[in-house]
Amino acid sequence: IRFLLSINKLSQHVQNTRHYFAPGIRPQHTASSPAHGDDVYQQPLVKTEIPGPKTKQLSDRTSSMQNTGALAFFCDFERSKANYLVDGDENIILDCFQQISSMPLGYNNKELLDLCKTPAFQSTVLNRPALGIFPGTDFPQLIQDTLLKVAPPGLNQAVTMACGSCANENAYKVVFMWYMKNQRGEELPLPDDEAFTTCMKNQIPGSPKLSILSFDGAFHGRTLGTLSTTHSKPIHKLDIPAFDWPIAPFPKLKYPLEEHESENTKEEARCLAAVEELITEWSKRAPVAGIVVEPIQAEGGDNHASDDFFRKLREIALKHNVAFVVDEVQTGVAITGKWWAHEHWGLETPPDIVTFAKKMFIGACIHQLVLHNSQGYRIYNTWMGDPSKLLFLEKTIDIINSRDLVSAAETTGDYLIKSLKDLEKAQPGLLSSSRGRGMFTATNVRDPGARDKVVKHMLSQGVLVGACGTESIRFRPSLLFTPTHVDIAMDRLNQGLNSVK
Amino acid sequence: IRFLLSINKLSQHVQNTRHYFAPGIRPQHTASSPAHGDDVYQQPLVKTEIPGPKTKQLSDRTSSMQNTGALAFFCDFERSKANYLVDGDENIILDCFQQISSMPLGYNNKELLDLCKTPAFQSTVLNRPALGIFPGTDFPQLIQDTLLKVAPPGLNQAVTMACGSCANENAYKVVFMWYMKNQRGEELPLPDDEAFTTCMKNQIPGSPKLSILSFDGAFHGRTLGTLSTTHSKPIHKLDIPAFDWPIAPFPKLKYPLEEHESENTKEEARCLAAVEELITEWSKRAPVAGIVVEPIQAEGGDNHASDDFFRKLREIALKHNVAFVVDEVQTGVAITGKWWAHEHWGLETPPDIVTFAKKMFIGACIHQLVLHNSQGYRIYNTWMGDPSKLLFLEKTIDIINSRDLVSAAETTGDYLIKSLKDLEKAQPGLLSSSRGRGMFTATNVRDPGARDKVVKHMLSQGVLVGACGTESIRFRPSLLFTPTHVDIAMDRLNQGLNSVK
Repeated sequence: IRFLLSINKLSQHVQNTRHYFAPGIRPQHTASSPAHGDDVYQQPLVKTEIPGPKTKQLSDRTSSMQNTGALAFFCDFERSKANYLVDGDENIILDCFQQISSMPLGYNNKELLDLCKTPAFQSTVLNRPALGIFPGTDFPQLIQDTLLKVAPPGLNQAVTMACGSCANENAYKVVFMWYMKNQRGEELPLPDDEAFTTCMKNQIPGSPKLSILSFDGAFHGRTLGTLSTTHSKPIHKLDIPAFDWPIAPFPKLKYPLEEHESENTKEEARCLAAVEELITEWSKRAPVAGIVVEPIQAEGGDNHASDDFFRKLREIALKHNVAFVVDEVQTGVAITGKWWAHEHWGLETPPDIVTFAKKMFIGACIHQLVLHNSQGYRIYNTWMGDPSKLLFLEKTIDIINSRDLVSAAETTGDYLIKSLKDLEKAQPGLLSSSRGRGMFTATNVRDPGARDKVVKHMLSQGVLVGACGTESIRFRPSLLFTPTHVDIAMDRLNQGLNSVK
Repeated sequence: IRFLLSINKLSQHVQNTRHYFAPGIRPQHTASSPAHGDDVYQQPLVKTEIPGPKTKQLSDRTSSMQNTGALAFFCDFERSKANYLVDGDENIILDCFQQISSMPLGYNNKELLDLCKTPAFQSTVLNRPALGIFPGTDFPQLIQDTLLKVAPPGLNQAVTMACGSCANENAYKVVFMWYMKNQRGEELPLPDDEAFTTCMKNQIPGSPKLSILSFDGAFHGRTLGTLSTTHSKPIHKLDIPAFDWPIAPFPKLKYPLEEHESENTKEEARCLAAVEELITEWSKRAPVAGIVVEPIQAEGGDNHASDDFFRKLREIALKHNVAFVVDEVQTGVAITGKWWAHEHWGLETPPDIVTFAKKMFIGACIHQLVLHNSQGYRIYNTWMGDPSKLLFLEKTIDIINSRDLVSAAETTGDYLIKSLKDLEKAQPGLLSSSRGRGMFTATNVRDPGARDKVVKHMLSQGVLVGACGTESIRFRPSLLFTPTHVDIAMDRLNQGLNSVK
């Protein structure tokens, strides 16, 4: 009976939405598809179980050299293309996760591959300089054509780094320096000041007691400073010393939003009030120099808040003279339907700092001129990132702009979220809280165990999605993802849900 | 009279050492030169002041986008070759600093450039994976042919990261996890343990009060965790919150060593005693889980200690059950005449962890199996470095081995240190404390002001060296550096010293 019910539900659903189809049958999708032609593969093709025998062999070998606890499978990158990832066992997988959201144009984009063949690229990637002291002659133009080209208005200072954690670590340092400059009324104390000697011993006043306020459920990185602002999962934080910094509640919105408007508004007000209370409470202990927030908490479970929440949070930062740091490591680069997710908010005053990495190829923080410091070596390290990544970014920006992939992300995202909501209705009790901005979407499965089984089942049918939070599935496709790909993903999600009924 | 004296001294010196010569005249050096033929430039050629007009123009432009306080000059990397760096004003500069010690084979090595032209390299650099979850099928072999090929005996676990700071941050995390596992007697507490909930709030016991012991004058990075173990210069640390961790004195040796043997032995004993006292003192406050030390304190001023000091330090770590972390970010990769500088010490028990970056192309920590943890996502981030850097490293290891550049570094280093000591005698009162291991050498100029002038003068004559500490000049040449290059550098150093007489 249960089986028949399932069939019946799916059948109704197919009639209702016409998005679902048997594996191997390609839907006749007619929506505009700016990325059509990027794929060389038209659909997933699974030959073995995943992980397959070759991955298992390689995994056994790797486990003698390093922790393989997170390892999913090995990839054949030379054979992968656009939205399709080919694994070491020749399975062709529709990749809706894209190396944890870090591939804007999928695999082996032809124009980027052509770039790799140029002498300029080869010279840049081989002769990686110490960018803060001996940059290449093309560096200023490159910064202008990449980071500053896409920087939010008002943010015109760019600090490059090698990864997202370092982008945030340095953003925090910029914030602390700015805060202490405001306290002193000048950039540096005199060299004979107590601050100069005490900082060498990690003691106040040179190493001041200051804090960054972060949110429950946030993820900002795994180095000791950023980890003190990360509160996603115990396994990330256990056993690691942390700074005693304030942690505010992040709104837990109820879905569907339209049915819980007043509850959600109260919830956001509660969290904003807590932020202000914490700023006051910490002012004696370790004053809050900055607030850091993700536009959508990704690792923590794709937790959203309203635009109004973020506008008010920005106002609180201004009111208390605290820097407002927006971490766009995962939300950046067009996937939400705007280049930066925070552009949706309609802020009157831009963020003080925006940080990013992943789809930007390079880690960096860009900030307002007011946070600039003029002494060398204060924000610095040997490499300060890798300029060859800026060459990838330069070309990627051109491609995204010329193909209008920002709008495409919005269009495909609308279709994706509508498809998820349709599937919610078709699978009541199994799927809920579908939410998203552009293609940056997620949905909740009944419980953590069922979520894990659905993700696994989808992979066995050739579709890779990410997991986040305790029971969410997240979609982080490339910008070449189209409604056609959405249909395939929804079909496999539906199959996965059926498998846990 | 002063001028005549200078001339006289130089003239005596030339007679004594026969290493010095007028600019533009090439010495007829006959020492064996394994790297002969790498250079396309035979000597420095300076056309403009340095920084020249083009650099100044680019620098003005850059200063509107970022801090240029540390910027020296812009480089034309495509025209640079091996030991010679060409700047944006077409000056040909003998580079004894190599992008802060990060270029093992100098600029545009032909074999590495050829590597950039291969499809395998291009696929790897473009499709940068999330290495901890979706590595390429070639990854296990690559780790074996790179990091584990040069790993010290006993260290067989490799964690890749994007830079030196992240290598150290993660080494500290490995140490903390190992320490807490020892405390508990098992890897993880049960999920309902207090540690699981408290760590999410940055509170004990989940976020334990533990510390890393570091040394005065040390440099281990600039992220908040590593910066808490960095004590080189106030400008690196000022205004940044720090962990209250113990800091031990590092030996201040007197030179020449042979004249201060008993004093130096006492000094090292004093520092070792302080280490033990700090471990005991901190046991109640924030137990020392690890000791981190550079084989030669680089940024702090090229401060050496004896092999005996390090052997005893390692014994102290064993005695107190504290992890022994050796930071080889700057000292690694053959420049000291062994692959790792700590190989000189003759340890009975290898370090628990060795960290590196710079000339290894990738940041990483390699550690003993006993520090391994088996859960996924504890030591992790999205990229975990960049496997294309391992391809550079693989080829570089082959080149270094096939040309025996480790021995060459020792031979050239002996010649460099002898030349520096000769120059000390020729420039008494101006130059002192020449010290080094292989080509990893430094010398002290009379005072900080004079040091800065000498470095500047040398650059104006086409030789780039680094500064470190308050009054030291450091040599961090590529492994292709030969006695011929030493002669050129010594000539310019001598000229620089004359300029501050």
